[in-house]
Amino acid sequence: MAGQPLVRLRLDLAYDGSGFSGWAAQPGRRTVQAVVEEALGRVLRVPAPPRLTVAGRTDAGVHARGQVAHADVPAQSWAPVADTAVHRMARALPPDVRIRAMTPAPAGFDARFSALCRCYSYRVCDEPAAADPVRRNETLWHPRRLDLALMNAAARACLGNHDFAAFCRRREGATTVRTLLRLDWARDGDGVAVAVVEANAFCHNMVRALVGALLAVGDGRRPPEWPGQVLAAGIRDPGVHVAPPHGLCLEDVRYPF
Amino acid sequence: MAGQPLVRLRLDLAYDGSGFSGWAAQPGRRTVQAVVEEALGRVLRVPAPPRLTVAGRTDAGVHARGQVAHADVPAQSWAPVADTAVHRMARALPPDVRIRAMTPAPAGFDARFSALCRCYSYRVCDEPAAADPVRRNETLWHPRRLDLALMNAAARACLGNHDFAAFCRRREGATTVRTLLRLDWARDGDGVAVAVVEANAFCHNMVRALVGALLAVGDGRRPPEWPGQVLAAGIRDPGVHVAPPHGLCLEDVRYPF
Repeated sequence: MAGQPLVRLRLDLAYDGSGFSGWAAQPGRRTVQAVVEEALGRVLRVPAPPRLTVAGRTDAGVHARGQVAHADVPAQSWAPVADTAVHRMARALPPDVRIRAMTPAPAGFDARFSALCRCYSYRVCDEPAAADPVRRNETLWHPRRLDLALMNAAARACLGNHDFAAFCRRREGATTVRTLLRLDWARDGDGVAVAVVEANAFCHNMVRALVGALLAVGDGRRPPEWPGQVLAAGIRDPGVHVAPPHGLCLEDVRYPF
Repeated sequence: MAGQPLVRLRLDLAYDGSGFSGWAAQPGRRTVQAVVEEALGRVLRVPAPPRLTVAGRTDAGVHARGQVAHADVPAQSWAPVADTAVHRMARALPPDVRIRAMTPAPAGFDARFSALCRCYSYRVCDEPAAADPVRRNETLWHPRRLDLALMNAAARACLGNHDFAAFCRRREGATTVRTLLRLDWARDGDGVAVAVVEANAFCHNMVRALVGALLAVGDGRRPPEWPGQVLAAGIRDPGVHVAPPHGLCLEDVRYPF
């Protein structure tokens, strides 16, 4: 295929993370990346599945409604399916992954490196009156009532440009400096507490560790100053419990294009 | 237990209908009624599970967020658990059913006969850009674009007091006269088409048959006058396809209390 003209496609994806070992392809595991790459290869009728580059490598069990990826594919494979690709992908994919849109990307687009910011949500139900079994696979059940005002006060201390090492699983040599743009909690129409969390990028476990720290503030186990103190200490704090993956969803990725 | 003072409890329930053969107890089937009655019997420590009377007997696969039921239970079994009953029920129930509230009912309350009106929602996704695999168990996928304005025009012709025999599974001797108070479609923040359907009561299959007729209008297979004509004809029309159960949810039951 050397020398063939390639077209860079932007894929917008949504998936239910429950049945996947996360985004990234791993031998012997069912991953979103492998399932989508395989379907894309079949729809484009190329001999080897195209490789996807993704905006947010979600962990096992984490959902996405606004994931973005790109793939470079032979232009001559794309042309015949361009108008029907989304429907073809729907037929080729299992029901827990959908392609919402699939189009040639603007010049210079890179799903990972062009992203300005990633936006996640985290859903927590803390009272039986708001329990919704239909959405239990995307909502954490928290058995103690949460004070969202305390959680929002605590969250404000974490906003801005910081080294988030205290809230990240450490990886050798990788920076843990990130800009947290937004972290606030509100109750939706059903009484479920929903966090909106935005940063230029997140390190591994960062959203779930921040959520875990704030839950401890919300139910009174920790004072509102504590998450800011943990952040300032700059080292992984064993008192921070990483919140379970199923409440977390990648909602949106923003680009300058 | 004869002569024991009884207390009538009102139970507010939510459930994911996917794993149930509907509300009503049937031998050899997993039903919401049987599962909740059994848990209630254990929590109250009564020898035989109390019998539940329900506001809306949902079909297999139909969900509920606002189901209401009542049960008459021995006052001396209720008293010791009154303050902790909701949490005890949560421990006694499988994760696809939750009790949202459980309290002594006002005098004269009957979950079925006191109900003024039942409110259902029906969720339909008609475009890949709005597809949400996380909520696929409560959303119908409709492969053709829907014109909600046409559907709302068609729905208006069905409002009011009518014999809904054309949209009901017939049962010998039972009236099919109902008052349809509301039936309108709107897109939610994600682009999913959601119907809100209210009536004093519904006959069997009525919401799903109305939704099925309106889907045929929305995607252009039938003219907007058609559902009103079917209604006026007064007999079950084989052209009306009953919409699948999983898009349907009992959201609310209203009482004069």
